[in-house]
Amino acid sequence: MYRTHTCGELRIENKGQKVTLAGWVQKARKLGGMTFIDLRDRYGITQLVVEADAPAELVELATSLGREFVIQVKGEVVERQSKNPKMPTGDIEIRVGSINILNKAATPPFTIEDESDGGEDLRMKYRYLDLRRGPLKRALELRHRVAHEVRNYLDAQGFMEIETPYLIKSTPEGARDFVVPSRMNPGQFYALPQSPQTFKQLLMVAGYDRYFQIVRCFRDEDLRADRQPEFTQIDCEMSFVEQEDVLNTFEGMMRALFKNVLGVEVPNPLPRMSWYDAMDNYGSDKPDIRFGMTIHELTDIAKGKGFGVLDGAAYIGGICVPGAAEYTRKQIDELTDWVKRPQVGAKGLIYIRVGADGSLKSSIDKFYGADDLARIAAAAEAKPGELILIMSGENKRKVQTMLGVLRLELGGRLGYRNPKEFAPLWIVDFPLLEWDDETQRFYAMHHPFTAPKPEHEALFMSDRKEDLEKVCANAYDFVLNGNELGGGSIRIHNADMQKRMFEVLGIGPDEAEYKFGFIINAFRFGAPPHGGLAFGFDRVCALMGGQDSIRDYIAFPKNNQGRDVMIDSPSKIDDIQLEELQIALDLKAE
Amino acid sequence: MYRTHTCGELRIENKGQKVTLAGWVQKARKLGGMTFIDLRDRYGITQLVVEADAPAELVELATSLGREFVIQVKGEVVERQSKNPKMPTGDIEIRVGSINILNKAATPPFTIEDESDGGEDLRMKYRYLDLRRGPLKRALELRHRVAHEVRNYLDAQGFMEIETPYLIKSTPEGARDFVVPSRMNPGQFYALPQSPQTFKQLLMVAGYDRYFQIVRCFRDEDLRADRQPEFTQIDCEMSFVEQEDVLNTFEGMMRALFKNVLGVEVPNPLPRMSWYDAMDNYGSDKPDIRFGMTIHELTDIAKGKGFGVLDGAAYIGGICVPGAAEYTRKQIDELTDWVKRPQVGAKGLIYIRVGADGSLKSSIDKFYGADDLARIAAAAEAKPGELILIMSGENKRKVQTMLGVLRLELGGRLGYRNPKEFAPLWIVDFPLLEWDDETQRFYAMHHPFTAPKPEHEALFMSDRKEDLEKVCANAYDFVLNGNELGGGSIRIHNADMQKRMFEVLGIGPDEAEYKFGFIINAFRFGAPPHGGLAFGFDRVCALMGGQDSIRDYIAFPKNNQGRDVMIDSPSKIDDIQLEELQIALDLKAE
Repeated sequence: MYRTHTCGELRIENKGQKVTLAGWVQKARKLGGMTFIDLRDRYGITQLVVEADAPAELVELATSLGREFVIQVKGEVVERQSKNPKMPTGDIEIRVGSINILNKAATPPFTIEDESDGGEDLRMKYRYLDLRRGPLKRALELRHRVAHEVRNYLDAQGFMEIETPYLIKSTPEGARDFVVPSRMNPGQFYALPQSPQTFKQLLMVAGYDRYFQIVRCFRDEDLRADRQPEFTQIDCEMSFVEQEDVLNTFEGMMRALFKNVLGVEVPNPLPRMSWYDAMDNYGSDKPDIRFGMTIHELTDIAKGKGFGVLDGAAYIGGICVPGAAEYTRKQIDELTDWVKRPQVGAKGLIYIRVGADGSLKSSIDKFYGADDLARIAAAAEAKPGELILIMSGENKRKVQTMLGVLRLELGGRLGYRNPKEFAPLWIVDFPLLEWDDETQRFYAMHHPFTAPKPEHEALFMSDRKEDLEKVCANAYDFVLNGNELGGGSIRIHNADMQKRMFEVLGIGPDEAEYKFGFIINAFRFGAPPHGGLAFGFDRVCALMGGQDSIRDYIAFPKNNQGRDVMIDSPSKIDDIQLEELQIALDLKAE
Repeated sequence: MYRTHTCGELRIENKGQKVTLAGWVQKARKLGGMTFIDLRDRYGITQLVVEADAPAELVELATSLGREFVIQVKGEVVERQSKNPKMPTGDIEIRVGSINILNKAATPPFTIEDESDGGEDLRMKYRYLDLRRGPLKRALELRHRVAHEVRNYLDAQGFMEIETPYLIKSTPEGARDFVVPSRMNPGQFYALPQSPQTFKQLLMVAGYDRYFQIVRCFRDEDLRADRQPEFTQIDCEMSFVEQEDVLNTFEGMMRALFKNVLGVEVPNPLPRMSWYDAMDNYGSDKPDIRFGMTIHELTDIAKGKGFGVLDGAAYIGGICVPGAAEYTRKQIDELTDWVKRPQVGAKGLIYIRVGADGSLKSSIDKFYGADDLARIAAAAEAKPGELILIMSGENKRKVQTMLGVLRLELGGRLGYRNPKEFAPLWIVDFPLLEWDDETQRFYAMHHPFTAPKPEHEALFMSDRKEDLEKVCANAYDFVLNGNELGGGSIRIHNADMQKRMFEVLGIGPDEAEYKFGFIINAFRFGAPPHGGLAFGFDRVCALMGGQDSIRDYIAFPKNNQGRDVMIDSPSKIDDIQLEELQIALDLKAE
């Protein structure tokens, strides 16, 4: 071993000990003949001092050290003259007796500090240097800790981690697969799994009634910001359970994570909200409930005053923004422009200012008298000093979604979205089916194996569209601070129910056989009632770390073009590889 | 929850309790009006009984149950008339009050018993049914337990599990990569990792001084028996360590595994054997030390008696087989044929019988007198009743290897290879370099980043072939019962040493840059001394489970053609997928 201690562990109690440390030179500086060196490793920073009266060779060696040199030092722990209370090792320093340069270092292309001077692209190219920085180190430490706690919790609950294959079969449903040509089976391809969904259901058929896996998944999508072509899931499935059992088990897991990793207590039990309430009150199926500013429906109360925009709307809703009654016209115009951007897509914004004295002033004074405004303000539950912002439109859910986006934006601006505050909840009672006007058919909101709620099974047999639209799924999402962290469902295990589902979705027997034949066949041999869920592990870690972006919680992420710029991948391969695989490039003209 | 208890937990203490169980019908049988049902789940089997005087519908329902039906039963725990001491639940049975068929089952294509009547191919096709069988369930349970213990041990030792990417870059060294065409980067490919070697070394450069990962690896090889295209490694790396530190850390891990998972104590410290001793005495770099029958060199003592075969040999060696002096001529002929098979490749077998009275009788009596034979027997340390088997040849290591193979075969036949006995050890002091006569150059025995032993660094600078051949590597293998379970090395972290290695291997600067430029460049920024190893996780589990084959320790393995016959993969993909990927099939004529 090159060291007796790490750079994070020596304290005043170690005073007088002879120690050996090894690490990287964070910085070195001369001060009145003495040389001070900050030595860094994964565990912390310890200050080294080479005294002015040390042997000349030692002083010279200390002076020659560059940033990020790897050195080993022997010396004695001494009490510091000027202590640094910000560092755990700040009471001591090492009086250096000898220095051994283990490796020199070229000057890094950016500073290795919590706040680096390097741009995103440069830091991605030299990811192995960026990973030396504190924020990334803490992110990966958190990730390790979270994974370990997940495993401990689930193991204690009798779950088995079972590895499922990565070289599987391309399926005709869902997003695009990454595929892998098979050399031994020319003309044929494996696919990389988008999730182990099929395999975990097979494991239930096989009787492994509590399965989990922290597993990589792959999706060849056009990458939006903060999506990765490979990502990690906490994937789980249970047999002989109802929805209630799944929710209890996994909110227990999340509670354990927050408590054991962050020391944070989250409510027990967690709040549950129906999808309908989430949409009506928050304009989102993943509501951020850290703050209020909920949506109030104003449809009936705001219509019929001769203002065409509202009179013609199918839905009118509003939110009340605390302290915003005094917004300038410019501020309100800016908000109006903000919601008119294509990302939100609103046509405009109506406002009512509620003065400190309760007086009301609006952008629609022309059509609405004081009493009308008062009734709207009452329906919106507006308080003095608030600004009521109102939107309307043809499609209730669309208007609610726009109000929800505005709510989140204003919540952020007003400082209501503290990343260190955690407000998890379950969203339940999703509609089972979504009607598509264009194709005039129903689609499964989750997937075609999601079971209806037991109390809605009769409704599910109805032939009426209005009935089918009311059927709720035995499905659930785990939501935290406006993000969906996980979701799942109780699966259909009964052949007749599955047949009915395909019927409702307009999937004929041939299509069902082609798309799902394998799993349906497996289910013939005694499938137990089962259900499960999956959490997006990268995002669980990022949110627990108080970050929006998952990128720093992945050791070696890819950029938005799906490239690893550090290793420069993907890349061309040798002709001989193509030949062995019996494939050829077939590049389209640019 | 569909059950109050599992099928493995009820005992006589539960007598009188009303319980609900759910599981699969293992079998049902009528006995004097009563119906007995064995109900199975992951946890065990519980006997159910429907009394003769139960309501007729219940009796009828019980009678109608087929094998593998999924049922839920409610009833009372009662003491059995005839207890079954072989079953943990054998003291009780459930007097059934009601049965709820949760799912019917088609008759499985083979019996779901510890010994199934299904052939290998059929069971692979219906793997989800095969997985219901006891041996596979116990295999996966062991695997889960081993993984969990590995993680607990390494976490407690300060190791961080860090996930490395699966979509990486194809490298020109080593075995064949599986590749993944990139749709977003047409004409370019990712590769699936053969191991995270590069990334774990980068993590050391990044300062994560104790890394591990239980990680999938991929190798597009022509599959030999019991090799899989995807397999799992316990991959580890440490910084600021010497070989001794790595060995101590990981033999501690293996000791913890054996103790905590199997209750088996393995020696502390583990034996270590040099590669030279392993080859000389066991004819293998992964010796099975559960039994003796070691190889004795007889070169000097057996030459010069006019027997051309031996006189012309560069090496002569023998093993003594206990109790085999009485082998018939037919038995010895069979052994001779066995070693002449191409898998062993020997030219023949010389024998000397050592009678119970010490008398010697050999196949070479024509050339060797009693004294000659006695000298050979003494050199072979033969005891009365043993049969000395002798081989010779041009190449010492080849002859030793053949003797080693014969030794293992006979050890197996003689019952010396008990799979429940565990004899782990480290093999150390590997040669750093292997000379290849054909190309007249040295090759790295492990890989070109393996460091020489510190005490051989001077020798490594020599230009003499004889000196370089003597240089030992700072490398080590973990061997158990004749299997290599893991191996690794201390890496070269010093640029000058690396340059020397490339020089010795005849790798010019351009080639080095092409093949290893990326990692060499990363090393410029302050690489710490580091080293590590990787264990073959599938094989660790199989051997701990007392099995030779890894296949039952993988939930969904592939066959020898790399196919998953259950999901029928690899398979053709749609033309539209090929088009999007801008590749075309280029199939050779058959």
